[in-house]
Amino acid sequence: MTTQRLEAFSDGVFAIAITLLVLTLVVPARDTLGGESLVAALGHQWPAFAAYLVSFLVIGIIWINHHAMFDRVRRVDRLVLFANLGLLLVVSAIPFPTRLLAEYLTAGGDARTAAAVYSGTMVAMSIAYTLLWLAITRDAALLHEDLDPRVGRAALRRFGIGGIFYLGTVGLSFLSPIGTLAVHGALAIYYCFDHLPAPPRGAQGDR
Amino acid sequence: MTTQRLEAFSDGVFAIAITLLVLTLVVPARDTLGGESLVAALGHQWPAFAAYLVSFLVIGIIWINHHAMFDRVRRVDRLVLFANLGLLLVVSAIPFPTRLLAEYLTAGGDARTAAAVYSGTMVAMSIAYTLLWLAITRDAALLHEDLDPRVGRAALRRFGIGGIFYLGTVGLSFLSPIGTLAVHGALAIYYCFDHLPAPPRGAQGDR
Amino acid sequence: MTTQRLEAFSDGVFAIAITLLVLTLVVPARDTLGGESLVAALGHQWPAFAAYLVSFLVIGIIWINHHAMFDRVRRVDRLVLFANLGLLLVVSAIPFPTRLLAEYLTAGGDARTAAAVYSGTMVAMSIAYTLLWLAITRDAALLHEDLDPRVGRAALRRFGIGGIFYLGTVGLSFLSPIGTLAVHGALAIYYCFDHLPAPPRGAQGDR
Amino acid sequence: MTTQRLEAFSDGVFAIAITLLVLTLVVPARDTLGGESLVAALGHQWPAFAAYLVSFLVIGIIWINHHAMFDRVRRVDRLVLFANLGLLLVVSAIPFPTRLLAEYLTAGGDARTAAAVYSGTMVAMSIAYTLLWLAITRDAALLHEDLDPRVGRAALRRFGIGGIFYLGTVGLSFLSPIGTLAVHGALAIYYCFDHLPAPPRGAQGDR
Repeated sequence: MTTQRLEAFSDGVFAIAITLLVLTLVVPARDTLGGESLVAALGHQWPAFAAYLVSFLVIGIIWINHHAMFDRVRRVDRLVLFANLGLLLVVSAIPFPTRLLAEYLTAGGDARTAAAVYSGTMVAMSIAYTLLWLAITRDAALLHEDLDPRVGRAALRRFGIGGIFYLGTVGLSFLSPIGTLAVHGALAIYYCFDHLPAPPRGAQGDR
Repeated sequence: MTTQRLEAFSDGVFAIAITLLVLTLVVPARDTLGGESLVAALGHQWPAFAAYLVSFLVIGIIWINHHAMFDRVRRVDRLVLFANLGLLLVVSAIPFPTRLLAEYLTAGGDARTAAAVYSGTMVAMSIAYTLLWLAITRDAALLHEDLDPRVGRAALRRFGIGGIFYLGTVGLSFLSPIGTLAVHGALAIYYCFDHLPAPPRGAQGDR
Repeated sequence: MTTQRLEAFSDGVFAIAITLLVLTLVVPARDTLGGESLVAALGHQWPAFAAYLVSFLVIGIIWINHHAMFDRVRRVDRLVLFANLGLLLVVSAIPFPTRLLAEYLTAGGDARTAAAVYSGTMVAMSIAYTLLWLAITRDAALLHEDLDPRVGRAALRRFGIGGIFYLGTVGLSFLSPIGTLAVHGALAIYYCFDHLPAPPRGAQGDR
Repeated sequence: MTTQRLEAFSDGVFAIAITLLVLTLVVPARDTLGGESLVAALGHQWPAFAAYLVSFLVIGIIWINHHAMFDRVRRVDRLVLFANLGLLLVVSAIPFPTRLLAEYLTAGGDARTAAAVYSGTMVAMSIAYTLLWLAITRDAALLHEDLDPRVGRAALRRFGIGGIFYLGTVGLSFLSPIGTLAVHGALAIYYCFDHLPAPPRGAQGDR
């Protein structure tokens, strides 16, 4: 089975999940402003804008790295399809913790719950991503060319460290929900620069 | 007519339906908690999370099996287009019974109605899937290579048994709505392992 | 410019519009039933189910015929891009008149308004489709092979007759809103069978 | 990295954002009409229809020009991926200012806020588009063929003038919100005709 339809379907889910995030941004109804100006009402909604931005970045990075991962893959089997479905389950769920954070980031004790759910989703994403990498690299016949075992181990180590960081944000959620969102934003920006080394030239020649 | 645009359009509908499921997960508005903590409020919503998970799995499996089915197909005619549209009608409707179950799974008598609507949707899906298989296999010219008649009959028998199981869940809905959802989850997991035999090697060589 | 990205983008819009129709099907909130059973509440919503079904069929047919139209096309220019955008504008708007009809089909005088808006959308769709056909067939260089002028004229005549029928449904809206919806369903089923003649064999050989 | 998946993902986001705009068109609930006819209620919603139309045109034009831009591109690197993600962030956010304008266009002082947010989004879009152009044209190895430096400079000059116009609409928002929406519609129609010169014949030969 070629990777073409898997990539098309995954791109569809990524594209929809990232675009559905806009539903996080709620337009206050005219008759609920109660004398407040629209500027002030939008100002109160800053958690929604912040959560939107961070989640957009997170899904965008996952898409780019998914892209880079499947550039190494020649064909997929059923196990890879299911591991990929696991990752898509987490990605397509992200709009929910995003809206949760938008609603509760400044709500005292409940803010901790919302931040912990958001962080837990990121832990799940990190696990799903690692499982997908293991499913892909377990069988050399699925890849365009042999994976250098050191590259494979280095990638796993990096995924593990990432997972520990995300686990740390679950703990941080109980100390500072706003700080937790900031850390998730910083982690996403970090992953813009840190990524799988590109496969050597020529590896994609048979595409 | 080649299968390319049919697959692209179907992948789009599958990807959107599976991602729209996230709208099942409703964020409780801050001013409706009424003293309850967010943890407790989310806990009350467990039917939404369970229905979301089962429906995600169901659509994911249909996508994977749709994928496997069209790997055998060389070109499509108008009858296949309409049979496929029938399957997409059911798939794109799935978010509705899912939200129905999320809202009513613990609502006494109405829970039976919600479970029966959900089960009825699965019966419709099973019928639509069988009709699509019949439309595809009725004309050898549509396939990459001749279908072994025994494989065709075995597939139909399996689809028939699946349909009877789904019909059984309609009955079960009146006894135990929660049990019905659990059975749908179990059926989806079962279909992860049971599937059409792969076409013999080389059958996709002309793609 | 090849047709590939135009078809991919159009397929995306068709797939999303057809899947967003499911938002027409509203789950009644538990605390608004007021003693009524869920079965009864869903029964009252029959206009939503009927409008959903008809609009699904309409968008599905447009997609199939769009598909057949672009099978003749070799490359597109900016005018075709804009004519196509016009069609997509109407298609992506269809969920609105569908929800309007779902809400007002049994609402006396307002039902006429809702049916007229729905019928007007179909007139707009018919015009946009005809303009797209004119944009495509105006320049032989855009097509895989010369269009037989008789085929072109026959197609235009058929589009014109279709447009007159849709215009008739605007008038019918003021007599019988429910009858109008039924006629739209019948027209969609009619267009399942009546369509552009397939281009002669070999015309798609260079794809 | 080829442009194929970037274009597929971008097309997905464009298609979803443009189709989600339909959620701007709210169906008034039957029990909120309060004696008013549906015709009158829909008439009051003219800002929603106008904002929908303008935003549809804006996203449609961006899609067409994105299409034309990537016709010149042979392969993409990570910087282009991120610049493209920046553009998609703005595009996928457009439904929010559109709904804001639909709700507040006739709301006195708050109308100015809504128009300024809409205009600000267009400024952001203009900047993101220019950055994407700079990312693509900074490295000749990414293009199908050398870009004539005069073409590059002329394009940048046009983007700059466009940016100044959009900046002007932010100012205009405080004078006339309705006029601002009209100007955005006029600018979109203008961009239907003014665009990047097509690459010379043969430039896409290796696709």
